Amino acid sequence: MSETKHLHNQVKPIPPGERARLLGQQGCVVWFTGLSGSGKSTIARACEEALLKDRRFAYVLDGDEIRTGLNKDLGFSMDDRTENLRRIAEVARLFAECGVICITSFISPLKSSREEARQVAGDARFFEVFIDAPLDVCEQRDPKGLYRKVRAGEIPEFTGIGSSYEPPVNPDLHIRTDKTSIQDAVAGVLQTIRARGFLKANA
Amino acid sequence: MSETKHLHNQVKPIPPGERARLLGQQGCVVWFTGLSGSGKSTIARACEEALLKDRRFAYVLDGDEIRTGLNKDLGFSMDDRTENLRRIAEVARLFAECGVICITSFISPLKSSREEARQVAGDARFFEVFIDAPLDVCEQRDPKGLYRKVRAGEIPEFTGIGSSYEPPVNPDLHIRTDKTSIQDAVAGVLQTIRARGFLKANA
Repeated sequence: MSETKHLHNQVKPIPPGERARLLGQQGCVVWFTGLSGSGKSTIARACEEALLKDRRFAYVLDGDEIRTGLNKDLGFSMDDRTENLRRIAEVARLFAECGVICITSFISPLKSSREEARQVAGDARFFEVFIDAPLDVCEQRDPKGLYRKVRAGEIPEFTGIGSSYEPPVNPDLHIRTDKTSIQDAVAGVLQTIRARGFLKANA
Repeated sequence: MSETKHLHNQVKPIPPGERARLLGQQGCVVWFTGLSGSGKSTIARACEEALLKDRRFAYVLDGDEIRTGLNKDLGFSMDDRTENLRRIAEVARLFAECGVICITSFISPLKSSREEARQVAGDARFFEVFIDAPLDVCEQRDPKGLYRKVRAGEIPEFTGIGSSYEPPVNPDLHIRTDKTSIQDAVAGVLQTIRARGFLKANA
């Protein structure tokens, strides 16, 4: 029994630097924000695919998956939306700790929520990416048919119409998706991450 | 604008099989359960280190980190403990989806919580690992000084003393840490994962 009697003395998480060296990658949080229909999910998925093809561990956290799983106990009141984003920020932090490039794709309309996410994730590994298109373009795209419902009066508080969106003042990257191709948007995101040293050459 | 007008048609997550092929790894959930002091954290960390050194993405979710972050809004009532584990299972599922070998290290005293975790994570990629030592051995180790507090009457409901622990009936692996070295415990965990095809040779 001698070997395991003092098991607790053995608990030492592997240090972050050593972890990054072994995995050949450092985790970070790439926080997309923008209106519904601005192109967040499309660009997030395209970034994820480009990173995976470059053999990087990348993962997109997005609304539907979180709303039907982790946050299925939450509704759409302002309090619940804030708690929704709080939990997402905490989960994104865990992914970054793990070493994953975690891309979050949520409207996240309030500056305060995005600032909290930055605090939680850690400033040095947090990127705010503003996925931007004019409201009329977003409404024309209407990928989930939500704007149609809003105009029909079926959704009372919708970001950009009945509820305000606070655009980022000084985002790490600003992409106008009505003027930029998906390829260029992806290149911009990867360049932004690379410029801060998060995409070192694979070993 | 033509290129991005129909952005939403582009949203296709990379299929799981393709993801696994690119990453050279399939995600799973290795759910440790056992009394405080049974050795969960020690063995979880040792497994994580062994996997990292084998260039596998592995990550330990454990109590202190989750309780001070994601679940800091929760207390220790039975409802809150259940919600604590529900969220952990959902987060572990996300890690598995991402492709990470996710090891969770929580007492998780109730069969029902562990069954729910299995359902959430997906049976085919879920491993229940019973980290087992007699109560007196756990109490003697007392890594966090909790048993001392319990005996002093400072903690009313403590798993194994004032509150029951339901041992797994048919776990994927049962480790008696009073009779097994850490090295052998780690080897057992890795062998259990490998036997179900989750540790294929690195590309």
